Amino acid sequence: MNITIVGLGLIGGSFAMALKELNPKNIYAVDIDEAALCKAENMKIIDKGYTNAEIPLKCSDLVIICLYPKLVKKFIKDNIENFKHKAIITDVTGIKKVMIYEINETLRKDLDFVFGHPMAGREQKGLEYSSKQVFKGANYIITPTERNQEKNVKFIEDVVYGIGFKNITKITPEQHDKIIGFTSQLPHVIAVSLVNSDNLNLNTGKFTGDSYRELTRIAQINSQLWTELFMDNSENLVKEIEIFEKNINAVKNAIINQDNDLLMTLLEKASVKRKGMS
Amino acid sequence: MNITIVGLGLIGGSFAMALKELNPKNIYAVDIDEAALCKAENMKIIDKGYTNAEIPLKCSDLVIICLYPKLVKKFIKDNIENFKHKAIITDVTGIKKVMIYEINETLRKDLDFVFGHPMAGREQKGLEYSSKQVFKGANYIITPTERNQEKNVKFIEDVVYGIGFKNITKITPEQHDKIIGFTSQLPHVIAVSLVNSDNLNLNTGKFTGDSYRELTRIAQINSQLWTELFMDNSENLVKEIEIFEKNINAVKNAIINQDNDLLMTLLEKASVKRKGMS
Repeated sequence: MNITIVGLGLIGGSFAMALKELNPKNIYAVDIDEAALCKAENMKIIDKGYTNAEIPLKCSDLVIICLYPKLVKKFIKDNIENFKHKAIITDVTGIKKVMIYEINETLRKDLDFVFGHPMAGREQKGLEYSSKQVFKGANYIITPTERNQEKNVKFIEDVVYGIGFKNITKITPEQHDKIIGFTSQLPHVIAVSLVNSDNLNLNTGKFTGDSYRELTRIAQINSQLWTELFMDNSENLVKEIEIFEKNINAVKNAIINQDNDLLMTLLEKASVKRKGMS
Repeated sequence: MNITIVGLGLIGGSFAMALKELNPKNIYAVDIDEAALCKAENMKIIDKGYTNAEIPLKCSDLVIICLYPKLVKKFIKDNIENFKHKAIITDVTGIKKVMIYEINETLRKDLDFVFGHPMAGREQKGLEYSSKQVFKGANYIITPTERNQEKNVKFIEDVVYGIGFKNITKITPEQHDKIIGFTSQLPHVIAVSLVNSDNLNLNTGKFTGDSYRELTRIAQINSQLWTELFMDNSENLVKEIEIFEKNINAVKNAIINQDNDLLMTLLEKASVKRKGMS
């Protein structure tokens, strides 16, 4: 089996490292950054790198696209004739509904695109921060569509477990985008907004415990990627932000009104729920 | 030198463990929980435990009060005649201004209370989660008052560095409460509100990456302690919540208006600021 990874950034590089352990026949990589391809070859995490996708795609049974959302659609469109007959394609994109609709409209009939989302990453970007460790024990979401063949979905699941993920959940693209709006996008919006609220004009790092550092780690954000992700999921995300605004407002009002009982109830509710999270 | 630790919970227990390494003559502990005292004696992190503070206080040169804010005031008042002549007292309380004012009003003239705040903790409570590791490399704030003798402030600083803290910053009680409203209390309000916004009715843990888990760890909150802390610092905290609400609202509006440039600017601003934090 030959595999092509398209986009050799943090996630693409981590896939290459993790897949290498499963001993596929060849791992190819496609990227516009020749230095990254060269580095990956030297690290022996890929067998060969290409700036032009045609050659590796024509012989690859599995293609893993690790590009920003808008580039995924463009890549598929530009390369629609280059894919091997009956190739399986998957992605790592953080939003699904709109993208799946657009891609499935232009997809060749013999190709099977099984859309996936590894719930794993880092605050850095680029191959130099790649690590197969980032996948160990993490969650994965697959959003099967009517076009998908069951055996191909099963195949992707086997690969995902094989590279170290712990849980795979299969849900619809609509469910995915709603859930991710809450569990991933909202935390990023919050972290960014918290850092932007810093008006101490001091060396903030001298006055922090773990809490501030943990809440703001992900504010070291890849602005371009997350702008795309937020905009493409705006309806769900705005709803989640507004639910959050209501909840923080409830805490604020309990404090303003010096309502000890209500404040304690709100804290206790969160504490019990968080302790119960697996 | 004899030391008494009042309150043998997570922080008091951690102090006992860390202080033991500095080889003081005796470490005594005062708590209403006899089992905790007995456990600490068996662990050899204290020399003797007492449910009545009178005996240990009378021979202690340093008293470290690790109680909830309201109980600190009560403890001082109830034991004002029990402290050794010229004893140094310190605390670990997360709010300062109101407490310092109230305590200094009733404090015996020969006693020196150097108020402090270790920026270190855990989401659990109780002696069983104590660890001297929690202090290693952490920040400490001391809020000297006019009553304090310089040599006693210096003494507390030496102890604090001795048990593993990395930075000590000295600021006024007013500055402390404002800063802590932002760096500590606001993150806790946010974490609680985020968990309370979970209306997925799903096993949330299956759909999370590190971001949600990190942002909500501290939602496993000691409700009673933090209700006191929030209420006693309500003016500062409410201001910080409102600044945060403005900032999250700015992100929300950029998304609603599909203003890519503005959204990217807000993300980039946070990213640069957070990366620059020491």
